Amino acid sequence: MSNQPTPNEIQQIQSAYRRRILDAWNIPPGSRILEVGCGQGDMTVALAESVGPTGYVVATDIASRDYGSPLNLGQATDLIKDSELGKRIEFHFDCDVTSPDFEAMDFDYAVMVHCSWYFDGVDQLEQTLSSLITRATRLCFAEWDTVPQSTDQIPHFLSVLIQGQLEAFNPASTANIRSPFTVNQLKQIIVDSGWTITHTSSPDTTGLQDADWEIAECLTNSLSHAKALNLLPKHLTLIEGQLDTLRQLTKPSGNTPLNSVAIVAKVK
Amino acid sequence: MSNQPTPNEIQQIQSAYRRRILDAWNIPPGSRILEVGCGQGDMTVALAESVGPTGYVVATDIASRDYGSPLNLGQATDLIKDSELGKRIEFHFDCDVTSPDFEAMDFDYAVMVHCSWYFDGVDQLEQTLSSLITRATRLCFAEWDTVPQSTDQIPHFLSVLIQGQLEAFNPASTANIRSPFTVNQLKQIIVDSGWTITHTSSPDTTGLQDADWEIAECLTNSLSHAKALNLLPKHLTLIEGQLDTLRQLTKPSGNTPLNSVAIVAKVK
Repeated sequence: MSNQPTPNEIQQIQSAYRRRILDAWNIPPGSRILEVGCGQGDMTVALAESVGPTGYVVATDIASRDYGSPLNLGQATDLIKDSELGKRIEFHFDCDVTSPDFEAMDFDYAVMVHCSWYFDGVDQLEQTLSSLITRATRLCFAEWDTVPQSTDQIPHFLSVLIQGQLEAFNPASTANIRSPFTVNQLKQIIVDSGWTITHTSSPDTTGLQDADWEIAECLTNSLSHAKALNLLPKHLTLIEGQLDTLRQLTKPSGNTPLNSVAIVAKVK
Repeated sequence: MSNQPTPNEIQQIQSAYRRRILDAWNIPPGSRILEVGCGQGDMTVALAESVGPTGYVVATDIASRDYGSPLNLGQATDLIKDSELGKRIEFHFDCDVTSPDFEAMDFDYAVMVHCSWYFDGVDQLEQTLSSLITRATRLCFAEWDTVPQSTDQIPHFLSVLIQGQLEAFNPASTANIRSPFTVNQLKQIIVDSGWTITHTSSPDTTGLQDADWEIAECLTNSLSHAKALNLLPKHLTLIEGQLDTLRQLTKPSGNTPLNSVAIVAKVK
């Protein structure tokens, strides 16, 4: 019998992980935060707790309110807005922070947590990071680390890699994983955008369900997705082979997630 | 200080591995063998030992005598022909066993060892395997098993996968790895070609240098190869990221090779 966590337990595990990321960053009470790629607001809540009643968080996402499931972004963040912390938070969807239409104001911190793999490529991520230099004095950034450190992290790694390969063929991708940059690639992009990295840490990812989620996404959808993309036979055979390898390495649940990296940078 | 094996030690390690494959197959003295994809003849020598003075090996490869390095196929197999075992062996290069020009004769065994990944795809491999049914009563087949079983097998796995991705973009590939089929894919192709699998084993690959060779090939050539193929930026970024991940996981030498599989099949 599997011992699946309840939705409430999942939420607690995810929130605890966001607080571990924040532990490495020491964001002081009263801080003004611009969050890019807030998604369903998991990190937004942790940030709002962290800045206290005198701080605030402007949380943005380029996606629309109706993106995502089982709750879409609008539904999930409306619940947050209705909570006690909601007063410290402003959500903006369909919001491109690089656009001149996005109202300029001064922030202490720009925050991007587990959103870089949604970007369409190096140029789009670099453009966003460059634009944040004019808006905040510190960048706080977190993402998965692609390098598997143990055998039981291989399934998460492989599920990321399979999705990355498919999305590289898909210019109109709306997937969770479109550009699975490595930590070294991310550091290079951050530096090339004009930031100076001051601190790097590796928050503990133990217990996070993201490996299970990405593996399930892969095993459920990647083959039909590959066929819909009309891949050439050799590409399709290679994807099928990786799915076969993934299937042999995967546990029904409780697959170990990859490590992650948390990076702090300052304006030069 | 690294403790690199000498060329002679490498040859001994490779030969011992070929004999371990043969141990699982029990090919009796006096057997008539057709080898497909003989390459530089490592397996051919082991087969010639195994069949004794009353047997023979017709060793074929679709590649030309001038393919391969540091010795090309012609040079390597001329040395074998000049040895005591040479009398039991006939080498044929530029030789397509599916062609009507290839002289039909009866064999007891058709042997394909570590050559299936050179094939251009499922159809080409299936066509060859089907044609062997009319020439031999048993098929003896061996290949790497893509599934990494330990962390230190990940670099070999990843070097195979990177090469497989690049070669899928390259219709005129002459690389070592063009179609890295999984064991399940190979079994399916063998069965679809009309053979019935009777025996499967996993010969010990410990000590083989192939992981080091494939990793070096990848780290030395894959990036320039990817650029020469004019990949789109997203594909190129993904290859660069995998090379970065590979570099971080790789030891300077002595990387653990993947497992392998040895399969015996009979005509239905």
